[in-house]
Amino acid sequence: MKLASVKTGGRDGKLVVVSRDLTKAITVPDIAPTMQIAIENWQTAAPQLNAVYERLESGNLQGAEQFHFDPVDVHSPLPRTYHWVDGSAYVNHVELVRKARGAEMPESFWHDPLVYQGAGDDLLGPRDDIPVPSEDFGIDMESETAVITDYVPMSTKAKDAAQHIKLLMLVNDVSLRNLIPAELAKGFGFYQGKPATAFSPVAVTQDELGGAWNEGTVNLPLVTHLNGKVLGQPECGVDMTFNFLQLIEHVTKSRNLGAGTIIGSGTISNYDRSRGSSCLAEVRMLETIEHGKPKTSFMKYGDVVRIEMFDKEGNSIFGAIEQKVVPAPQPE
Amino acid sequence: MKLASVKTGGRDGKLVVVSRDLTKAITVPDIAPTMQIAIENWQTAAPQLNAVYERLESGNLQGAEQFHFDPVDVHSPLPRTYHWVDGSAYVNHVELVRKARGAEMPESFWHDPLVYQGAGDDLLGPRDDIPVPSEDFGIDMESETAVITDYVPMSTKAKDAAQHIKLLMLVNDVSLRNLIPAELAKGFGFYQGKPATAFSPVAVTQDELGGAWNEGTVNLPLVTHLNGKVLGQPECGVDMTFNFLQLIEHVTKSRNLGAGTIIGSGTISNYDRSRGSSCLAEVRMLETIEHGKPKTSFMKYGDVVRIEMFDKEGNSIFGAIEQKVVPAPQPE
Repeated sequence: MKLASVKTGGRDGKLVVVSRDLTKAITVPDIAPTMQIAIENWQTAAPQLNAVYERLESGNLQGAEQFHFDPVDVHSPLPRTYHWVDGSAYVNHVELVRKARGAEMPESFWHDPLVYQGAGDDLLGPRDDIPVPSEDFGIDMESETAVITDYVPMSTKAKDAAQHIKLLMLVNDVSLRNLIPAELAKGFGFYQGKPATAFSPVAVTQDELGGAWNEGTVNLPLVTHLNGKVLGQPECGVDMTFNFLQLIEHVTKSRNLGAGTIIGSGTISNYDRSRGSSCLAEVRMLETIEHGKPKTSFMKYGDVVRIEMFDKEGNSIFGAIEQKVVPAPQPE
Repeated sequence: MKLASVKTGGRDGKLVVVSRDLTKAITVPDIAPTMQIAIENWQTAAPQLNAVYERLESGNLQGAEQFHFDPVDVHSPLPRTYHWVDGSAYVNHVELVRKARGAEMPESFWHDPLVYQGAGDDLLGPRDDIPVPSEDFGIDMESETAVITDYVPMSTKAKDAAQHIKLLMLVNDVSLRNLIPAELAKGFGFYQGKPATAFSPVAVTQDELGGAWNEGTVNLPLVTHLNGKVLGQPECGVDMTFNFLQLIEHVTKSRNLGAGTIIGSGTISNYDRSRGSSCLAEVRMLETIEHGKPKTSFMKYGDVVRIEMFDKEGNSIFGAIEQKVVPAPQPE
């Protein structure tokens, strides 16, 4: 099934079940008013939500109950989250970052996952503008996949992790490249360099991917457009060094995950460079390695990024993230 | 006034108003069922909560409505949060960390605040045990102060930040010292090294500190005990390089803060070493600088840490954080 959160009913929106073709939706207040509440009560909520989904798909619903689904009207599926942690599972991308600045990547990076802790209070909707105070911050997208988990106890092993993955999404992990070097040099990781993140219009259960979900990995390409031109369409199932099951083992080493935790894959990247890139930083690194310096600039105000995934029949699975970069309003 | 969240009514608990002497409490479901909802509606909720507080203080309440307040029964005031960011405002402490490993601290650390992004889904109550899978992780406390903000827009300046600080708390920012070096060496900051954090039994408005709250700083000592012995009682108002107003300017450079954001001060630390320390890492660094190696070990299972702040009359302001370190349960 496919679920979304429409922008009514406060900061958490209102949970809706969305048709497979992303044209129709229906609210489900009697099952769960919000996505967070659905995830916290997934064992009872999921079968009921799925029953509504089947009726919606079969056309077996009163016309008055359903409405036209428009991704402009939705928050991210979880409009805010208590825990957003993003992996860097495509280690070839990390290797490239290091290579571009002439540094060796430690061999341990192939065995020990790298993640960063994000904030979940200020997520953007899939069609919301990206507000940035200055173009000089070096505005970039990162196209990724992500999972939503239920409660996961500390010390969970990869082999036991699959049961905790309830929903899948796409991500635009907006990054401010020119703030990052000084920030990382301080040693405590990202903060200012990782502003509000956006997720796809709908979150879907694993069966919506058919055979394309396997062993904690999405086996489909993720397509990124910048201003209408394809930037990349790498295969998410290729070169993913750590799958989501392994990422869950890593992030539960010393803590429990609350229900509604979002775990990201990191920027999708293939060794096959003909697949293109999922962020401008990678494009610029490849240019640096080839030409000694980057040619492509980061995003400017007015630039539009679009991130989408299609099934084997060419249908959009999650709907598209499509966001325009704009100047941030000054506080009053 | 003083507010707490009792452990009934689900993961967010139930908001209660607590008497100044921390002996009595009363639920306020008609004003706000949870702390998160109170913070989101602070402008209307605060005067109503304060009216209840005044009636509770004056003894002008029916006996049946109020109940005995016991810090064992509460979550942290915000039982979970969408945004937990912790500063390192006591730069002398950071300088000491570097000195102990023979490294220079960059001069910029005196002008550019250092923060790390924490997760807010798995906060501990003030009297909850601290579950850790292994004593080898290097278990340590960090005693700190913290503020809870309402919604703070991007690009807020320090001079405009005071209005956004709604409540104050104490923090035990539990740290796993032996996981941290390898984690920070990867370059993306803390994750496994910073497990679940605990906060004081009550959160208080600034007037509860009398003149001790000034210019975004708490001007009182913070007392840390380990197994009944004083570890330190440094002055929070001394050597705080960045006050909370400056920290708010830093953390809103590229993002908004959602209502209910918690900002921590970092480990309280004074140049006057006779004040003792607020974490074992600092004790060990001082020993390393003096003797070449540390003598004090990190916490073991069964060890108890207590963190408390007293007003000038010797009354506990926030109640005590008091936590025992225990082995983490293995998942079923």
